[in-house]
Amino acid sequence: MRDVAIVGAGQTPYGDHPEAGIKELFASAFGAMADSVDRGFDATALDAAYVGSLGVGGSQLGITGASLTSHLGLTGLPVQRVENACASGGFALLDAVHAVGSGASDAVLAAGVEKMLDLSGDRSKYWLGVSGDTEYERLAGMTFAGVYAIAARRYLHETDAEREHLSRVAVKNHENGAVNPKAQFQREVSLERATGAPEIAAPLNLYDACPTTDGAACALVVPADEAREYTDDPVYVTGFGGGSDHLALHDRETITSLSAVREAAEAAYDRADKTPEDVDFAEVHDCFTIAELLAYEDLGFADRGEGWRLIAEGRTRRDGDLPVNTSGGLKAKGHPLGATGIGQVVEVFDQLRGDAGDRQVDGDVALSHNVGGSGGAATVFIYEVDA
Amino acid sequence: MRDVAIVGAGQTPYGDHPEAGIKELFASAFGAMADSVDRGFDATALDAAYVGSLGVGGSQLGITGASLTSHLGLTGLPVQRVENACASGGFALLDAVHAVGSGASDAVLAAGVEKMLDLSGDRSKYWLGVSGDTEYERLAGMTFAGVYAIAARRYLHETDAEREHLSRVAVKNHENGAVNPKAQFQREVSLERATGAPEIAAPLNLYDACPTTDGAACALVVPADEAREYTDDPVYVTGFGGGSDHLALHDRETITSLSAVREAAEAAYDRADKTPEDVDFAEVHDCFTIAELLAYEDLGFADRGEGWRLIAEGRTRRDGDLPVNTSGGLKAKGHPLGATGIGQVVEVFDQLRGDAGDRQVDGDVALSHNVGGSGGAATVFIYEVDA
Repeated sequence: MRDVAIVGAGQTPYGDHPEAGIKELFASAFGAMADSVDRGFDATALDAAYVGSLGVGGSQLGITGASLTSHLGLTGLPVQRVENACASGGFALLDAVHAVGSGASDAVLAAGVEKMLDLSGDRSKYWLGVSGDTEYERLAGMTFAGVYAIAARRYLHETDAEREHLSRVAVKNHENGAVNPKAQFQREVSLERATGAPEIAAPLNLYDACPTTDGAACALVVPADEAREYTDDPVYVTGFGGGSDHLALHDRETITSLSAVREAAEAAYDRADKTPEDVDFAEVHDCFTIAELLAYEDLGFADRGEGWRLIAEGRTRRDGDLPVNTSGGLKAKGHPLGATGIGQVVEVFDQLRGDAGDRQVDGDVALSHNVGGSGGAATVFIYEVDA
Repeated sequence: MRDVAIVGAGQTPYGDHPEAGIKELFASAFGAMADSVDRGFDATALDAAYVGSLGVGGSQLGITGASLTSHLGLTGLPVQRVENACASGGFALLDAVHAVGSGASDAVLAAGVEKMLDLSGDRSKYWLGVSGDTEYERLAGMTFAGVYAIAARRYLHETDAEREHLSRVAVKNHENGAVNPKAQFQREVSLERATGAPEIAAPLNLYDACPTTDGAACALVVPADEAREYTDDPVYVTGFGGGSDHLALHDRETITSLSAVREAAEAAYDRADKTPEDVDFAEVHDCFTIAELLAYEDLGFADRGEGWRLIAEGRTRRDGDLPVNTSGGLKAKGHPLGATGIGQVVEVFDQLRGDAGDRQVDGDVALSHNVGGSGGAATVFIYEVDA
């Protein structure tokens, strides 16, 4: 496969956009992406596009992809919607990498979009529920928070972690969101507030959950050997992998480790010829605080059952040796389902190029981790810049 | 890009499957595909899967892909749902070709599934409507038949075609469906019956429309240079292309030619180094009879405005010089939206390998054409066997 690089990445602010539908959100993110290409970008040069979206709300569930690109006046190119619930964005990037890597395409858009905040309660419950298993979980009354609550309870039982460590994930990610102008929650929360929030599904409380979010993100994938036509500072995608698993928790061997993530991570590390120790910083899928602790372990940043120590010791804060979710993560930056995997790319792109402002961290090797549902699907990517 | 081949293809019977959900339909098609691999197939060797589906009914709209593969006990591999309305299957195949072509994967499933026949009237209208434009067409009351009726009326105005030529498409495709044991309608219809059917959206009547259908289809894509590990008779995918356009008719330059198809066809012919004259037979997207006439022209089988002559002269019947829709097409074989593009592969695979029974035609070069909505998206593939 030929090597690929990202030469542009941009996004909308995440949050509440009552004035915008998915077309407007997409157009805004596309514009931000185009603006980020150092030598400029002629949109008509795009020769394929992949748009990650669950289609929340259902207004344009068919041909969603072309509904967005044609809104920009772009027609002709092959474009499709990619659906893998909350990992739709990550899989859109995987497809873009394949399209460029195969040689079939030379300038491919990987995008994601979701519009979540104008749903009524019942519809919201339906649209979040369809990311989990339908037959054994959703229709039996299980909520999405409930699924992660079960994993959290088991994790607290199996390990030496304490309830407070979950809240410390939220505190850290809000610290980062507070300095991210694109974040939905640009404010810190105290440990007291995080631990004392109303319970939503024991042992998880309100501050263990990410918000629902409107937003879109875009990244431009090109052949590595053409990247310098766009910029002097390309971000190379050196590792990539995807994985899948049973949707329902009861079908899995364990509920405190996601095999889809382990498969995706192994493929990504192998391809990049890297180990977890090589990763300088990461964006991980913290839809609930427990998910970030599981990610530490499944990505190899910590041994099984020991992930909580990273947060306990402050190692994943911005001033730690392995900053995680410098963007604020899903918890504070926000989680527009299909956009999240591409929004992670935007943070990695800005960080690796030294454009992350007050949240800038050091590093030449980054990782992003995107999970669908409660682990039914996952992608992991490794990014590098010229040292 | 490395060359790719199809070494297995199979499907469910198309029609009404009240006993089966999408998992059961998918499992049945997967089994038929596996059975078609001459030297057998170990499903655990799959290293990626793409499932085309609009998700009609909405029961498992999130992580649909893994919900299906995990039902077969297959976990670990990256799998995703591909959505491009009625062209979802074609785009799933395009993704599989990229995944194998890039070298990232060595045995990739391209699949499609749709369950349409247990929807109540209002829900059916919604699910069909979301394949067209939402803002300017669906929410304004336009039906899907209405969109194609407008194109048909214009076509009859611009050309020398007569209303009867539309019905002759239906008659031909029912002739083929009558000898396809997988077809939803295994019966012929007379020209009198086809022309005299109740009008649904003038000038289209009931026999100008394809049915709604339950069904699934699967194809196995591998590197061409490994194909003979599976069979002595691989079907090579030598050409492929995708295209897109505005969803709403009013945004297009013409409504009697689909630019998405022309883009896809040009890419496919170029890559395969073939011309329309090289095609021995084709499966085209006849969701309405008018769509087949437009396809003749957009694929280069006839000049603009002259496509109706192919049907008038009987050239696209099984005994003609360019058989089209030997399977029965969407009209008689059926149209389970996301499965259709892969179901076309099944017919091409069987025909090129001499396994098409009573509907067998001659030929070494075949084409398939899959359209999303009223032309918002399209794929075209060219297939060849060793002469």
